[in-house]
Amino acid sequence: MTKVVRLGIIGLGNMGKGHLRYLMNQEVKGVEVTAVSDNAEAGREWAKENLSATVRIFSDPIALMDSGTVDGILIATPHYSHPELAIAGFERGLHVLLEKPAGVHTKHVREMNDAAGRAGKGLQFSMMYNQRTNPLYRKLRDLISSGELGEVKRTNWIITNWYRPQGYYDSGTWRATWEGEGGGVLINQDPHQLDLWQWTIGMMPTRVRAFCYFGKHRNIEVEDDVTAFVEYENGATGVFVTTTGEAPGTNRLEISGDRGKIVIEDGKLTFWRLRVPESEFNATFEGNFGEPECWKCDIPIRGDYPDHKGITQNWVNAILHGEELIAPGEEGIKGLMLSNAMLLSTWTDNWVDLPIDEELFYSHLQKQIQQSEAKKGVAQS
Amino acid sequence: MTKVVRLGIIGLGNMGKGHLRYLMNQEVKGVEVTAVSDNAEAGREWAKENLSATVRIFSDPIALMDSGTVDGILIATPHYSHPELAIAGFERGLHVLLEKPAGVHTKHVREMNDAAGRAGKGLQFSMMYNQRTNPLYRKLRDLISSGELGEVKRTNWIITNWYRPQGYYDSGTWRATWEGEGGGVLINQDPHQLDLWQWTIGMMPTRVRAFCYFGKHRNIEVEDDVTAFVEYENGATGVFVTTTGEAPGTNRLEISGDRGKIVIEDGKLTFWRLRVPESEFNATFEGNFGEPECWKCDIPIRGDYPDHKGITQNWVNAILHGEELIAPGEEGIKGLMLSNAMLLSTWTDNWVDLPIDEELFYSHLQKQIQQSEAKKGVAQS
Repeated sequence: MTKVVRLGIIGLGNMGKGHLRYLMNQEVKGVEVTAVSDNAEAGREWAKENLSATVRIFSDPIALMDSGTVDGILIATPHYSHPELAIAGFERGLHVLLEKPAGVHTKHVREMNDAAGRAGKGLQFSMMYNQRTNPLYRKLRDLISSGELGEVKRTNWIITNWYRPQGYYDSGTWRATWEGEGGGVLINQDPHQLDLWQWTIGMMPTRVRAFCYFGKHRNIEVEDDVTAFVEYENGATGVFVTTTGEAPGTNRLEISGDRGKIVIEDGKLTFWRLRVPESEFNATFEGNFGEPECWKCDIPIRGDYPDHKGITQNWVNAILHGEELIAPGEEGIKGLMLSNAMLLSTWTDNWVDLPIDEELFYSHLQKQIQQSEAKKGVAQS
Repeated sequence: MTKVVRLGIIGLGNMGKGHLRYLMNQEVKGVEVTAVSDNAEAGREWAKENLSATVRIFSDPIALMDSGTVDGILIATPHYSHPELAIAGFERGLHVLLEKPAGVHTKHVREMNDAAGRAGKGLQFSMMYNQRTNPLYRKLRDLISSGELGEVKRTNWIITNWYRPQGYYDSGTWRATWEGEGGGVLINQDPHQLDLWQWTIGMMPTRVRAFCYFGKHRNIEVEDDVTAFVEYENGATGVFVTTTGEAPGTNRLEISGDRGKIVIEDGKLTFWRLRVPESEFNATFEGNFGEPECWKCDIPIRGDYPDHKGITQNWVNAILHGEELIAPGEEGIKGLMLSNAMLLSTWTDNWVDLPIDEELFYSHLQKQIQQSEAKKGVAQS
């Protein structure tokens, strides 16, 4: 077994450079960047100027994978290319750490997951779901999985603090286009929340009815305003509201359960805890009016928030020491499925059952790309 | 012109008795209770024991109206009877103060409004929308109508603090039945919020897509859990979430606009005010990332909350001095239209345009009544 994971970074955009920053500082143990690739000249120039001369620089990510200089790859390229690059990595026996989103449509991501399955348990495949290391959401997951909240009855996430001015969208011809990014706020800003929404409660919805608006606040062709309603198998329901067009936005997650209610807002987690479960109170209370006794509990949030480098360290530890992955790569399809379902529900103006009809979503997406009047452009690096 | 309004109270249930309490205390000026009616023996017995001997007691509300002892009536009977009693009042030249909801279906309420129109301007017709006197919501309305918040972009009301145990529903055979009440949480608990939701922002939705659940938390046949999504003519959207089945509930209203965001929660109104409107910032800002400067403002809530007696006093003042009504009776149809639309959207599993197809709603409601397996019972008093 290797002592140090030789890492290749594919894509030197904002995210790729961000990862290099803490890696070059040796803030992650057991890993060494040995190669980078970028299909844009500017990215490679940046690498020459900023990285050690021992780091190999490639324009072709496949050449990087075939070079024999890496044990694993961190993929930080535009969304569409995520699955195909990950598949290429698996086929070459490489460990894969994949930036979010897992891809643009679940059809492609399912092929990636199948390839990961064929590659076997020996290869570590992780999603860069850095917000899974946020102690706020870890605590929420703990309170739910341990039964403290009781059975979940309702979820409600208002996540509208993704403000983006028109200048942001105008900064790249590929931005906020069906061809370049494959979507808007759902695919670009919300992948973390869509993941946390199901990861913290341990339940995926069974069906979705969503209302996406395209270019409502900005001169773009993709969705920049979404409200989604979902049902879960246990009868619970949920709402997810998001936009890039409001200032100041809100980030408030409320989960109600049989034992009370949890709200995460302003970096705090508050648990309104019922002394007896609501279902028990209701079954035994004999009056007309009355409520179970409720305690407002400020829950301590302990532990650090290692963020991106926490996920990278976890993936490296999984490779070197078999540590359990925080964000197994195969789980990337879940948040993407929610995102795809919301678009499909809007396009069909109807309910969408989960798992979604992947071919139907894919054909709708192709139609959007063909009908696009946006300046054609595919994201670089 | 009369100096004192001679008032007849129709219905001596909880609400009727509640009104009598402050009226007997002479907390409202310019009015005197001269008659009451209740079709239940128990209500009339209560009146005999508790009211002055000068107050006439009727079993038949029409006899009360025809008695020549009243100038106006306060109707506090079961929902279904509201429009027909109000119409009877108008036809007899009586002023009408009507408890919420205006009725059970808009078809009936429109007939009532038509009758009020025929009766003419001389008769004062008010809804008992006592929460319109709450200084919190008056301030919200002020901040919106004065333009402080700018054009409304989104509304979001989580109003789930209407907890009711099964014992509440079991306390009357008419409760929470289609025949007895004509609905559940929307018709019984939420009329105030459905009114305030449109009154504070000065806009009714143009269409509604709602998800009602019937007997989800309790052994009842009507809706006890609702999520509704709405669109407004200016492109704004909104969400309304309500239930009687959660503890502890939430009462949080968020309205975002071009100049920021207002949240009402825990009896406080907070205005996150943008220094320049978002639309102006977006049109002039040249960077990729950035947001308009935002000030968190705690808005002082001054003035008292006269509640029910405030509405009663206002109606009396309108009769005696021509004071403008806080809650003109004809506006009762608005909140009811929202409630009807939410049920109709669920029954048809589709969008409902506003104004709704009143005949269609009526026929669906009749079907519910016919199919009902609830113990038959119509509310008394």
